[in-house]
Amino acid sequence: MTNLELIKSISNPSPSKIVLVVIDGLGGLPSPETGKTELETANTPNLDRLASWGICGLTDPVSPGITPGSAPGHLALFGYDPVTFTIGRGVLEAIGIDFDLQPGDVAARANFCTVDETGLIADRRAGRISTEKCTELCQLLDGLVIDETRIIVCPVREHRFVIVFRGEGLNAEVSDSDPQQVGVAPKPITALNAEADRSAAIANQFVARAKTTLAERYPANMILLRGFSRLPQWPTMGEIYKLKAAAIASYPMYRGLAKLVGMEIMDTGTSIEDELATLKKNYTNYDFFFLHIKGTDAAGEDGDFDRKVRIIEQIDTALSELISIEPDVIVVTGDHSTPALLKGHSWHPVPILLYSKWCRPDRVSEFSESACLSGGLGRLPATKVMPLAMANALKLTKFGA
Amino acid sequence: MTNLELIKSISNPSPSKIVLVVIDGLGGLPSPETGKTELETANTPNLDRLASWGICGLTDPVSPGITPGSAPGHLALFGYDPVTFTIGRGVLEAIGIDFDLQPGDVAARANFCTVDETGLIADRRAGRISTEKCTELCQLLDGLVIDETRIIVCPVREHRFVIVFRGEGLNAEVSDSDPQQVGVAPKPITALNAEADRSAAIANQFVARAKTTLAERYPANMILLRGFSRLPQWPTMGEIYKLKAAAIASYPMYRGLAKLVGMEIMDTGTSIEDELATLKKNYTNYDFFFLHIKGTDAAGEDGDFDRKVRIIEQIDTALSELISIEPDVIVVTGDHSTPALLKGHSWHPVPILLYSKWCRPDRVSEFSESACLSGGLGRLPATKVMPLAMANALKLTKFGA
Repeated sequence: MTNLELIKSISNPSPSKIVLVVIDGLGGLPSPETGKTELETANTPNLDRLASWGICGLTDPVSPGITPGSAPGHLALFGYDPVTFTIGRGVLEAIGIDFDLQPGDVAARANFCTVDETGLIADRRAGRISTEKCTELCQLLDGLVIDETRIIVCPVREHRFVIVFRGEGLNAEVSDSDPQQVGVAPKPITALNAEADRSAAIANQFVARAKTTLAERYPANMILLRGFSRLPQWPTMGEIYKLKAAAIASYPMYRGLAKLVGMEIMDTGTSIEDELATLKKNYTNYDFFFLHIKGTDAAGEDGDFDRKVRIIEQIDTALSELISIEPDVIVVTGDHSTPALLKGHSWHPVPILLYSKWCRPDRVSEFSESACLSGGLGRLPATKVMPLAMANALKLTKFGA
Repeated sequence: MTNLELIKSISNPSPSKIVLVVIDGLGGLPSPETGKTELETANTPNLDRLASWGICGLTDPVSPGITPGSAPGHLALFGYDPVTFTIGRGVLEAIGIDFDLQPGDVAARANFCTVDETGLIADRRAGRISTEKCTELCQLLDGLVIDETRIIVCPVREHRFVIVFRGEGLNAEVSDSDPQQVGVAPKPITALNAEADRSAAIANQFVARAKTTLAERYPANMILLRGFSRLPQWPTMGEIYKLKAAAIASYPMYRGLAKLVGMEIMDTGTSIEDELATLKKNYTNYDFFFLHIKGTDAAGEDGDFDRKVRIIEQIDTALSELISIEPDVIVVTGDHSTPALLKGHSWHPVPILLYSKWCRPDRVSEFSESACLSGGLGRLPATKVMPLAMANALKLTKFGA
């Protein structure tokens, strides 16, 4: 029995409410000057209050030493083992631009690239053309119909775009055209099983048409495709946890990930206050809320220690609103660490606090990496967060008699 | 995807250097007089310095409560799950005497034993004959050729020796002759699959020849064989971690274990200073160094608390040399605990410290069992040590996008 099957077998609907606040890239590293991390530097009276009422710890999103991408980090928090539940590159790219992928669609991640006069790849990223240029070129390629399959082409950023093949009987089991190196020709797309022959042919025809269309568009005179994939068919959070789950996130990627596990997506604004207002507005209609805050990760990626501190303080202020609503369970954590010092995601474990009437409080009275070290949750895989939240909401019955 | 497959998929070569110092049997138990373990009793300014700069914790080599042998203890530290990656008894015995086992060889662990006039086993260890006697008897048995298979016989210690069958088409899937009890006859060796018939026949012929040769050599008038096995075919550390790995160990067993996972074996002397000189000499040519120190385990096995303390202090002094080289990552730990009070390996978790520029330091400022309890690494499976070292050396990319 997998972990999800176990939870599914003992979960029950109930009126109690769970709020999972994901502060993206929350964990940090100490500033060499002060010896304090971003979270330790920030003045966070509300988080500290929750920490002292509740129980704290540190999570490993994947496992010790592994730096997670956004998808594995979130799937783990939703209770889905990120090593088992993987998402194709094409689907992830489509999700990241809020593309409304349908069950039959096949999505591919694509690059504009430069080929020389003999057709060999000279630059896999076409000199990183501007997003505006990318948008213009995508319009040239968008809307073709090949063998009753509609091909939708959407810009992402710089040289990156998404291709979605929409029609009957498509199959994603085809190889990449992107050889991931320069000095060679793009590879023909081949079927990886017999059912994928037609899909490979359609993709190859599309590439040929694109080559003609782009012939005079140096440096973006060719395209490279990879990561053909379809929406995964996973058990939903409704099925597993019997929850009516709502996602409140201002960035497409996180709305997309939430949709993959069956959450309903709430319209919301871009600020933390907007997101909390959305939560309040929808509070009676759902019993689980995933609230995602992006600013911390962006500041960490930029190496901006002080901005990350300020955003944590803004979140803290806004949280007084959440506390006043009195959800049965509040969890505050991150999907991974993004230390400003490393300017990127990292492998360091992530602080977590869980507050409910039924948690067994520890002696931690401050929400910080170092205080969480001695917390009652200890160090735990992030996939255990949902079972703990469910238990604290009294939504799980006994396992075994 | 297994843990090793995951790491392999995200590891990259880089110039950064990792040094893994294994102090064999490092963990201990407190002396009833002082309440302090061997490590807590020792004066260790350098280890304490590393602990205060770095991050500490406790490892479980196999899992809580399990006392590991040397092989599982080391394999776990190299990142190989010791319950999955097992080594046959014959191979292990050959490795332990620095025997240069070849890929086609079949090795068996053997005992001289005593049989009575009816052929029943009276003593499985032939009264623990001396190592000199064992060596003399091995020479009598060594060098036979049966069915084009050369049989190499090497003494180990007391009644123990190794038999290596070398030739074409051998198969290790044969049963033991050792019934592991007295009062019964040695068992005929039988093939466990059809391909092993010839190998079983060769082994039985060898046993018959040995019986004749030893007839007048009471108490060592017969032999018992067990653990027929071949060199395992495992992914190497080079393949998994993309490391150029060097092993520095003065005892054969540890060189042999390192060789099994693809490390290159450095010539070195017997003292800690010799080993560190070897490291310095080879420092530019490798990016991973496994440095093994045996003395602590031997002192623990002898029940010599004070000697174990003294050896830890010698190691500490020598480590100032290692610190001055400034490797990117230093890990100091043991393969298991060997408390002098228990005079043997034990199940107690093992102190670990990891120092790198990118670790998130904790408040531990002393390298000891009790201080490590509140360390930032928490309590972790020893198989996570390599992923953590790799992460801290910035040799792992993100998992998932």
